[in-house]
Amino acid sequence: MAEGKKRVFSGVQPSGALHIGNYFGALKQWVEMSQEDDCIFCVVDYHALTTVKDPAALRQNILDTTKTLLAIGIDPSNSIIFKQSDVSEHTELAWMLETLVTVKFLELAHAYKDKVAKGLEANAGLFNYPMLMAADILLYDTDIVPVGADQRQHVEYAREAANKFNLAYGQTLKEPQEKIRDEVAVVPGTDGQKMSKSYKNTIPLFGSEEDTLKAIMSIVTDSSGERPAHVYAIHKLFKSEEELAPLYEANKGSYKILKEALAADINAYLAPMRAKYAALTDDDVKKALAQGAAKAKAIASKKMEEVRQNIGVSL
Amino acid sequence: MAEGKKRVFSGVQPSGALHIGNYFGALKQWVEMSQEDDCIFCVVDYHALTTVKDPAALRQNILDTTKTLLAIGIDPSNSIIFKQSDVSEHTELAWMLETLVTVKFLELAHAYKDKVAKGLEANAGLFNYPMLMAADILLYDTDIVPVGADQRQHVEYAREAANKFNLAYGQTLKEPQEKIRDEVAVVPGTDGQKMSKSYKNTIPLFGSEEDTLKAIMSIVTDSSGERPAHVYAIHKLFKSEEELAPLYEANKGSYKILKEALAADINAYLAPMRAKYAALTDDDVKKALAQGAAKAKAIASKKMEEVRQNIGVSL
Repeated sequence: MAEGKKRVFSGVQPSGALHIGNYFGALKQWVEMSQEDDCIFCVVDYHALTTVKDPAALRQNILDTTKTLLAIGIDPSNSIIFKQSDVSEHTELAWMLETLVTVKFLELAHAYKDKVAKGLEANAGLFNYPMLMAADILLYDTDIVPVGADQRQHVEYAREAANKFNLAYGQTLKEPQEKIRDEVAVVPGTDGQKMSKSYKNTIPLFGSEEDTLKAIMSIVTDSSGERPAHVYAIHKLFKSEEELAPLYEANKGSYKILKEALAADINAYLAPMRAKYAALTDDDVKKALAQGAAKAKAIASKKMEEVRQNIGVSL
Repeated sequence: MAEGKKRVFSGVQPSGALHIGNYFGALKQWVEMSQEDDCIFCVVDYHALTTVKDPAALRQNILDTTKTLLAIGIDPSNSIIFKQSDVSEHTELAWMLETLVTVKFLELAHAYKDKVAKGLEANAGLFNYPMLMAADILLYDTDIVPVGADQRQHVEYAREAANKFNLAYGQTLKEPQEKIRDEVAVVPGTDGQKMSKSYKNTIPLFGSEEDTLKAIMSIVTDSSGERPAHVYAIHKLFKSEEELAPLYEANKGSYKILKEALAADINAYLAPMRAKYAALTDDDVKKALAQGAAKAKAIASKKMEEVRQNIGVSL
């Protein structure tokens, strides 16, 4: 890691097509951070197993998610892009951390609590999730974990696990800090709610131009204001307010024209990424992941040597 | 694995000096099984982390426990002797199994229930212990797991985990069977209770001749019967009743003589093992563990290739 640079760790679930809400909410900042800091991007397929039980879908999602990271401009020669299941140290350190935290501590984690509160049966993977996530972060001497406000607890749990390890076995694991994303970046979906796969209101990042147009045409408009609010809110992500002012002034009430203009702007903006995405083959992705795995493994295994020594399983 | 042979998996906790109760209760049968079947002996140091937080003690216990296996006559060219932390596939498969079982299922495991029933705080490692143990067993296509009657549940949990995996992802993991040890082999300690480290009534396997004599001299005798019952019960492990009859007939009431005779017989019986133990250096042990790890890793990584393919994390 270069002198003075921060180590940044981000995990991304391989759980289906990403949308422009993901892009403006997180991915765009990742690209920016990757140009300044030492960034590690981990496709967390072992985490995904807590919810995905379809091998073909998981495999496809891993490929698509990695392709997305490459297509949006994260440079694998500059950052590390790898998948969790390629670095076995993640589950090993997770086990060690589990021996240091109480069951009660894990019962307080949000994802588990929410599941139980809904009367649903949680699997033990979901229960242990925070310690696998802690291991993800701690293996790489991470300084910063960029997260949404609702994920702050994950980093707190990682910090607490590192602290418990260090107290028991001497200073070994760096305590990471969260970097909470700007809430300004919340992107509205086609229905005006936060764009989210679970609300079915998304505009796909790597859909066709027709997909984009279709999604935009479905945006709910209200005629109460001067401008169709949801259309404009999305449009602002792609053009400045100055650029948009004459268009919206000239086409008051002409929602179809405004929507078509928005779709055209989105398609123009995303065209280079989409071209890159389309050009990437599965083999390119596998090669990038293999290179990333080698780099991640080198760091993780070095850290684990120290961890094993300090915990007493190295002879 | 040779045609027609059974694969047998045994885990041994590296948790301090073993005693003659362990030898006659389990280790002796292991030696016998190792001469007939394909046996794998795993020093489960990752399990030990749920209770041991002293790195120096853990390291020493791993060495001593391995030395014990070698000294009692398990042949590392014929069986596999390795330590759990050398084969990362154990925690990886454990994670996968955790995503397949519910929290409620693990809450029913004896060790965890007992801890909670005593009002103690369980760590999450203890909670997840049954799935790591299941992974230990399932990675090696184990047919038979020799256990004490009180450990039957461990094998049931492994079987259940294998079954859940196979139902979700197709036939992949062999469902193992337990082999419950003869209860005849329960060895009384110096106080007449079952010999157990926690009762402080043990006769060490690899102590000096003086240690043995001292422990034997402390055996509680009662003068109600013809023979000192506890002395005789231990003596029977080392000599046949026919051999012992004249000795006990000739020395009725002479407990000191009988105890000295017992100590001499124990020391004579254990002398070859003790000599072997004394001759083994730490380097010998490390070399044996390294060889065992290579053999175990070869089997475990092959199995995990299949597991990864079936679960969808292999591209």
